[in-house]
Amino acid sequence: MPKLWNETIESHRRAVREATMDAAAEVVAESGLAAVTMSKIAERTGIGRATLYKYFPDVDAILTAWHERQIAGHLHHLAEVRDHTADPGARLAAVLEAYAQILAHHHTGAIAAGLHRGDHVARAQQHLHEFVRDLLTAAAETGEVRDDASADELTRYVLHAVSAAEGLDSPAAVHRLVAIILAGLRPQR
Amino acid sequence: MPKLWNETIESHRRAVREATMDAAAEVVAESGLAAVTMSKIAERTGIGRATLYKYFPDVDAILTAWHERQIAGHLHHLAEVRDHTADPGARLAAVLEAYAQILAHHHTGAIAAGLHRGDHVARAQQHLHEFVRDLLTAAAETGEVRDDASADELTRYVLHAVSAAEGLDSPAAVHRLVAIILAGLRPQR
Repeated sequence: MPKLWNETIESHRRAVREATMDAAAEVVAESGLAAVTMSKIAERTGIGRATLYKYFPDVDAILTAWHERQIAGHLHHLAEVRDHTADPGARLAAVLEAYAQILAHHHTGAIAAGLHRGDHVARAQQHLHEFVRDLLTAAAETGEVRDDASADELTRYVLHAVSAAEGLDSPAAVHRLVAIILAGLRPQR
Repeated sequence: MPKLWNETIESHRRAVREATMDAAAEVVAESGLAAVTMSKIAERTGIGRATLYKYFPDVDAILTAWHERQIAGHLHHLAEVRDHTADPGARLAAVLEAYAQILAHHHTGAIAAGLHRGDHVARAQQHLHEFVRDLLTAAAETGEVRDDASADELTRYVLHAVSAAEGLDSPAAVHRLVAIILAGLRPQR
């Protein structure tokens, strides 16, 4: 088969997968997690049920794929925020603010609680830990962050403290939380 | 019946309850949560199984009572720490350090995960929130804690950040964490 044909198939498959995840997320948002079935998802996407099962074995697999895509989108956003700021201290502040706002807005307890046990979440948490640790290491080197605790310890502090943003519905409150966390990181006289 | 008789019965009942919780905790510590049965607990306490069922309907009830007792003990300890220090800033620091050390040492993941869903845990968390909020309010009044965020917001920050102490096996690392959290709380120029 010519290469172009393979690419077309691949891009078609990707589109079906994306549409399936979108449909599942819509059903969850409208009717809750318990209401999601393969039939409903198939109906909404216009794919036959038999075809849908060639892509995903069950609802759980679809929701997990959707959650993975959400997490990847968030991590991509944080990397963009990081890359738009040069100074290590300002970079840390910008990323932390962006992450806290994500936690405040995108954390849909019920769905997340079920999905948070997956391996993909452990991998994402590890990725996030390393991402934040690198920012902290760079900011400690320029003297903008304290160096009397290891970058791993500071990262633990940051990621636990910022989880207080979950469920905060005021962006101003999220901003105040970030300011407090950053104050904790400042070098001590 | 004379009052003394009632008191004797009451104190006997309390002793049986305490011994039962101790026995359950021992079995969990030795053989894990799945190994706990009413028979094993009865055997270890020397109470008959039928008698044991008059005190607790099932293993879950025993473990929940044990967990409640643990939490009450921790809260009592924190209140003692608070009452041994007069200055609001020092008081906050002492209680936070004590709480972080409790989290580092007493957090037995597997058991706790199952028990943490109980109502008694929600009540204890509410109690702890109010306990910490009062300390923060007092310390903000003497200018030792920032007042640009509400005491509730500061409490959220503290309780989330201090949960980073869970599983830390170095008391020095716990102490560093507490120092970082306190730095975040300091009034900003």
